[in-house]
Amino acid sequence: MARIVMKFGGTSMAGIERIRVVARQVRREWKKGHQVAVVVSAMSGDTDRLVGFCREASPLYDPREYDVVVASGEQVTSGLLAIALQAIGVPARSWLGWQLPVRTSDAHASARIRGIDTAAMDASLAAGEVAVVPGFQGLTDEGRVTTLGRGGSDTSAVAVAAAMKADRCDIYTDVDGVYTTDPRIVPRARKIGRITYEEMLELASVGAKVLQTRSVGLAMKERVRVQVLSSFGDPDEEPAPGTFVVSEEEIGDQMEDQLITGIAYDRNEAKITLTAVPDKPGAVAGIFAPLADASINVDMIVQNVAHGTGSTDVTFTVPAAELTRALDVLERAKETIGFATLVPDTEVCKVSVVGVGMRSHAGVAATMFDVLAGRGINILAITTSEIKVSVLIHQDYTELAVRVLHTAYGLDAEDAA
Amino acid sequence: MARIVMKFGGTSMAGIERIRVVARQVRREWKKGHQVAVVVSAMSGDTDRLVGFCREASPLYDPREYDVVVASGEQVTSGLLAIALQAIGVPARSWLGWQLPVRTSDAHASARIRGIDTAAMDASLAAGEVAVVPGFQGLTDEGRVTTLGRGGSDTSAVAVAAAMKADRCDIYTDVDGVYTTDPRIVPRARKIGRITYEEMLELASVGAKVLQTRSVGLAMKERVRVQVLSSFGDPDEEPAPGTFVVSEEEIGDQMEDQLITGIAYDRNEAKITLTAVPDKPGAVAGIFAPLADASINVDMIVQNVAHGTGSTDVTFTVPAAELTRALDVLERAKETIGFATLVPDTEVCKVSVVGVGMRSHAGVAATMFDVLAGRGINILAITTSEIKVSVLIHQDYTELAVRVLHTAYGLDAEDAA
Repeated sequence: MARIVMKFGGTSMAGIERIRVVARQVRREWKKGHQVAVVVSAMSGDTDRLVGFCREASPLYDPREYDVVVASGEQVTSGLLAIALQAIGVPARSWLGWQLPVRTSDAHASARIRGIDTAAMDASLAAGEVAVVPGFQGLTDEGRVTTLGRGGSDTSAVAVAAAMKADRCDIYTDVDGVYTTDPRIVPRARKIGRITYEEMLELASVGAKVLQTRSVGLAMKERVRVQVLSSFGDPDEEPAPGTFVVSEEEIGDQMEDQLITGIAYDRNEAKITLTAVPDKPGAVAGIFAPLADASINVDMIVQNVAHGTGSTDVTFTVPAAELTRALDVLERAKETIGFATLVPDTEVCKVSVVGVGMRSHAGVAATMFDVLAGRGINILAITTSEIKVSVLIHQDYTELAVRVLHTAYGLDAEDAA
Repeated sequence: MARIVMKFGGTSMAGIERIRVVARQVRREWKKGHQVAVVVSAMSGDTDRLVGFCREASPLYDPREYDVVVASGEQVTSGLLAIALQAIGVPARSWLGWQLPVRTSDAHASARIRGIDTAAMDASLAAGEVAVVPGFQGLTDEGRVTTLGRGGSDTSAVAVAAAMKADRCDIYTDVDGVYTTDPRIVPRARKIGRITYEEMLELASVGAKVLQTRSVGLAMKERVRVQVLSSFGDPDEEPAPGTFVVSEEEIGDQMEDQLITGIAYDRNEAKITLTAVPDKPGAVAGIFAPLADASINVDMIVQNVAHGTGSTDVTFTVPAAELTRALDVLERAKETIGFATLVPDTEVCKVSVVGVGMRSHAGVAATMFDVLAGRGINILAITTSEIKVSVLIHQDYTELAVRVLHTAYGLDAEDAA
């Protein structure tokens, strides 16, 4: 007997027919004698509908009331899955965020989970009942409804798994695991059997969409074993193993064999160049302080060598969705900063290679630059971390760069098309 | 300063534009310095959508999970109205059923309100905030979500008004008050200014649809002054007074002037005749016991004079929606009861005249029978209470019967078309 969490997203919950399929998948695990908690998203599209209502009611909506409205989507699917489970002979009940409760901070619309009280749910699980928990929602100390922000259901699933000390948290999704890169770009991409928390965290943060960055961070902190696997296929049959996201200890020596684990790309960045910034102490701080005040995340930063004219160019990236706001903030700080022009560029893409193997192997970055140069791809900016190298390139070269890097790091599958 | 409850139904909450109109109506009362709690229904059609999901998931759905699903409709409109109020400068917050809490029985899907704790809400009202309360929902002692059954939002409104000792509970609806009869049938029908709880209860129970019977019963028990008024018209202007439902003491002597207050009709009954039932002690009990066991309400009963053959015919009515089930129950008890044939008839209508004035005036029933006989309308069954006379007639005569009775009891308006 194991204790497992199964998480299903909005596409899997979109309508009663699909919820019935999810119920059969849950029954499959429950029949093995496992104690099963299921974390569900709202029906695909439902959260957008509810968010739309709030925005229509007032662009400056109260996030406390927004949370009351949008949390209803997961409430609906939780009740429906409990009904669908009972209909096929599986005892089940829903546990809403305020019923467990899932304690969160009071940062409405983007609350953080502080702890989950699973005492009542544990008794229910021990009695053989499946627990159905709406993702995305929680409760403040003052007893008000919160939501965790978009994609929060993965985080809910990991938090429930941590609280109930689950052996495994299975995230069912529309792909059958984490790939070495996007198979739509590289048909020879391979499914990764096991990946470390650190690598998954880097991949998620640089564009791999299979798991929410937040949920991976929480899994790492709480040492929750996460499996990403496909929600398609015969729900009554054992699914093919997906990708396990686990600790380095669990993977052991084997991971040293592989220099690079995965390659990700992200087209949702925008580049801003400030020309002729005075080359004096404090000038760069003058650029980034107002952006930080406006809660705009700056990612890659390049400061050019001074022109010898007492001024320099500064280039950096921000999320494309924040570009307009960032330009506005900078324009208003123009006199303080003292730049000549603002040059925005949305035609960029960040390509990243990630792997814990690079800790013990030099030359990963050098290989990357060589390979890209060999194809005539110009590098606009670079950032690195202990297990990641990212470069900013022109968007037109995205697919080419990903393909040549995938081959160069020996990631191509041998048997694929 | 008064404390008032305002209740808005699903049509008034159907979409953000309408919710904005409701917000202005609430602001109008709040601006007078009143303490205002607003009780809202789900968006028109939303509860049907959610009920449909549950039925699709399983015809034998768990009512506890059904309640989790359908209670979400009012949760959404509560949050949205709070947002819409804030958007026009009215401080407001939602108070969900489990937050107040609204304590109910554990009869899921048709729970009864046991009490409402308004301490926290009272503090919020005293601070000038409008309280928005979702109708229809509550919480069991075990902490599970309940709903009150269809139309429960009127009952929620009255219960909130009772708990907060409101001066008035205003039920906003698509008509501007309670009429002497259905104005679609009798254009000369008049709006009633004040009506007693007892009369409203009888009218609601015999087919007048303006208020839920349950809510009137609760208002009578808790002595809540209810006003039925129109939700149309300019939301910023004082609306025309509607119909006040109040105690006999408040109306005083004036009500003695009026013999009959209103006339209602109900086409949702079905007649069943059992022929050749043995005319012996216990035979009638043998008919109604199995119906009671099946929770089928029997309304009007007529036992014919014995034929002199040792057998008699028994006729009674049941809700039309229960006819099939009632016939099935009786067919299965055929040997025990010992009747010859079962004759169902759905082409019937119950017409009722209601008024506390008939307590002190004889001849109300006699007038009714005379008037109907004068038009050749055959009476199939009769029931009476202290303030009501109901007759069952063929459905084809419904409008004719209502019109001639409206005139006969002096209810026609003088200035109407």
